[in-house]
Amino acid sequence: MEQRERPVVETRVAVVGAGYAGLTAALELTDAGVDTVVLEASDRVGGRTLSELRPSGVRVDHGGQWVGPTQHRLRALAARFGCATFPTWETGRHLEVWHDGTRVGYAGAAPATGPGIPEYERITALLDRLAGTVDVDSPWQTPRFAEFDGHSAEGFFRSETGDEDALRRLALAVQGVWCAEPSEISLFHVLFYIASAGGYEQLMETRDCAQDSRFTEGADGPARAVAAALGDRVRLGVPVRAIRQCAAGVELSTDRGLVRAERAVLAVPPTAVHRIAFDPVLPAARRGWIGHSPMGRVAKVHAVYRRPFWRAAGSSGIATLYGDHPVGVVFDNSPEDGRHGVLVAFVYGDRLTRWAALDPDARRASVLAALVAAAGPEAAEPDDYTEKVWPQQEWTTGGYECFVTPGGWTGHGRQGWREPVGRLHWAGTETASVWNGYIDGAVSSGERAAAEVAEALAARAVAAPGPAAPGIMSSRHEQHR
Amino acid sequence: MEQRERPVVETRVAVVGAGYAGLTAALELTDAGVDTVVLEASDRVGGRTLSELRPSGVRVDHGGQWVGPTQHRLRALAARFGCATFPTWETGRHLEVWHDGTRVGYAGAAPATGPGIPEYERITALLDRLAGTVDVDSPWQTPRFAEFDGHSAEGFFRSETGDEDALRRLALAVQGVWCAEPSEISLFHVLFYIASAGGYEQLMETRDCAQDSRFTEGADGPARAVAAALGDRVRLGVPVRAIRQCAAGVELSTDRGLVRAERAVLAVPPTAVHRIAFDPVLPAARRGWIGHSPMGRVAKVHAVYRRPFWRAAGSSGIATLYGDHPVGVVFDNSPEDGRHGVLVAFVYGDRLTRWAALDPDARRASVLAALVAAAGPEAAEPDDYTEKVWPQQEWTTGGYECFVTPGGWTGHGRQGWREPVGRLHWAGTETASVWNGYIDGAVSSGERAAAEVAEALAARAVAAPGPAAPGIMSSRHEQHR
Repeated sequence: MEQRERPVVETRVAVVGAGYAGLTAALELTDAGVDTVVLEASDRVGGRTLSELRPSGVRVDHGGQWVGPTQHRLRALAARFGCATFPTWETGRHLEVWHDGTRVGYAGAAPATGPGIPEYERITALLDRLAGTVDVDSPWQTPRFAEFDGHSAEGFFRSETGDEDALRRLALAVQGVWCAEPSEISLFHVLFYIASAGGYEQLMETRDCAQDSRFTEGADGPARAVAAALGDRVRLGVPVRAIRQCAAGVELSTDRGLVRAERAVLAVPPTAVHRIAFDPVLPAARRGWIGHSPMGRVAKVHAVYRRPFWRAAGSSGIATLYGDHPVGVVFDNSPEDGRHGVLVAFVYGDRLTRWAALDPDARRASVLAALVAAAGPEAAEPDDYTEKVWPQQEWTTGGYECFVTPGGWTGHGRQGWREPVGRLHWAGTETASVWNGYIDGAVSSGERAAAEVAEALAARAVAAPGPAAPGIMSSRHEQHR
Repeated sequence: MEQRERPVVETRVAVVGAGYAGLTAALELTDAGVDTVVLEASDRVGGRTLSELRPSGVRVDHGGQWVGPTQHRLRALAARFGCATFPTWETGRHLEVWHDGTRVGYAGAAPATGPGIPEYERITALLDRLAGTVDVDSPWQTPRFAEFDGHSAEGFFRSETGDEDALRRLALAVQGVWCAEPSEISLFHVLFYIASAGGYEQLMETRDCAQDSRFTEGADGPARAVAAALGDRVRLGVPVRAIRQCAAGVELSTDRGLVRAERAVLAVPPTAVHRIAFDPVLPAARRGWIGHSPMGRVAKVHAVYRRPFWRAAGSSGIATLYGDHPVGVVFDNSPEDGRHGVLVAFVYGDRLTRWAALDPDARRASVLAALVAAAGPEAAEPDDYTEKVWPQQEWTTGGYECFVTPGGWTGHGRQGWREPVGRLHWAGTETASVWNGYIDGAVSSGERAAAEVAEALAARAVAAPGPAAPGIMSSRHEQHR
């Protein structure tokens, strides 16, 4: 493509993606005095977090929304920018709506009795035990690594039990945590992810776990605060189309011209890396890794009511739904002040694909039917109804994150997961060892990538004393491949 | 991107990719009098077939190379262009080199006795039986579809047997047929593919099966002949970067300007579709399908000798290798006239990834050691040695083809496999119902896509009588997203 007349930006580090990973990397580098520019394809920051102030005055989180007590990196970032949190609403009894229509209320984190529970508990305890053997920094060093990675979660579950009710519980757990079907996800990835979060309970529960708290001003509040601090270092609406590495630096072709840097941090999901033309092409292991890392499928649907009517009946609004409902899980997503009632319905995996193909009226009707089943007849008429279907988003392509299909870790993990490629460094929650898949993992991945870059720049400064010249491509070139 | 000064090509149909699928589609449309242009990113036609005349005068096939008696579409194409074939060399006794160093010679298609054979034969017969239930045209109609798709081949094999030798045989079979590890491929995809070929034996054997014959002038000979017939309708070195659909047509942004058409046929592997920016974005099901369709990993290494020395010792040169060798299978790839001896070594899957990371001397030494094990000490010193590492190829990204990971068919098959997206039609061997993954499947996929396009154009002609104007985008636009 002819770039002759295009503006050229020169910087020491170019960060691709203004989600939590990219913003954190840029913040760390900027704090360290390293000239950094963030290039974001879409027109906003926050990536897979996105809050919106609805006309009712209620702020809803369309994307990632929770923070837990052991998510130290996210909590530190939020604390730095003064972003307040409040406990997730869970006042009252929870509900299971079973596939045959049975409704079972329960108090506490999980029902004590019910169909499939003994086998479900046995198998999740086994998952926890096996997860305890995972090396989250060098997953390939895990004993029985290849053996675990050779199975789908589904294959493993079915080899463990024939209890269809336990299998239903396990499937909903996989859908809820990974937005994937048990059929498509590697058992090893499930174990790695459990280990990365500190245990199965951390993934599943609310109080003191991953779903403990929410951000008063939305889960993208800290991201917006970081972006404000970075100022015009963050460029929106700048898709990166091609990245060329040469001996002297990195050149990024964008819709708004060239960017030249010494190093680049790619802080985008694996599915978005595919969209960039690399010269030279990425190593086979990195491409193979991406080829085994599809994006999860999720929609979040918010229904806003004048009040949290379910609480009067002693219900928490938290429900899990089996059977024909498109919705898997419902949470009480009301604001901290409790002036409105908000239910959020999660639609996952294969059910998401079928539901998203319906027309808008049918989508709405089926979700409201699920909310009625979960919270009672008043749920049928919300004041406000809004859907976010993540697989339809151009740049994020889904949510919550990319998972790994069977064999992906074995075949491509060691070289493909997050190993730098020349001057390219990888960030994004998919590259995190701790809280992989969560906002916290995105933050720590940005910190790690920034540290890699800083070390590389320092090594270069030692190797070639004197002021490091920014933007040191040795020659212009007119063609990108 | 500004396209103001770029040349504009107008045509009724734009075909992306000049492998067998794209060339066949273009040939069919051209035969029918439909104005068609083929856009090929690389500097040659043939896609994943590629023959080369070596300095020794021997032509080697670096890519797909065989044709079998039931591969009717490829045979018809070859017959039309007068491309001759000859029987694959298999004179003498074959060899198994077992993981403990044991060498077992055998005559006929497969060894009658040996470690793991009873269990291997029982399980492959079971695969054949289950494959018999597959609906290759509407795979999702297959009984037990989701159940089979929920398992990796590895998970299924291990649920069937604890016989490690049988598991070694099954793993090599999967590597040899799909260039994948049993851990990464969906059991349903294995069954679909067996059904698509007409049975497991068709996939595995030489005489009267998939490996029956070779092309005298190389397996890309028919492709080159089609390209010659199409003349300047085939444009090489024209990567398509973006495709925009509107009500009136399709606009393709390439490195050499714009192409406007009424319909487009995308005849590239799923992994290459990722490289194109679509406006509007592709449906979630198509993207999900691609996300579950990684490319196989294979290298072919040819060693050329003055004569086929192994035949004097009664050996066929055909060997299967277990254990530490990078090579899984060796074939006698000598030319028809027998004036030279040629061995071809296949390196697959995880072994390919490890081997490709070695330096050139170590790669060569390890392959020659395997050839010595397979054919004797004379194999150590070839006159000519040449490697083709398919995962390192920019546009094809691997070989033989994209397979489907567990859950991929269930989650995305019905809408994502080959369903047209507006004015976009899908070709490529991955979209074939018969001989999926083979050259023959590529040819039939091109024929099917051409028929879809012709039908759509005819329907339009009926709906809007009068001469169909080529290149009927309603307005210029300066920006591509």
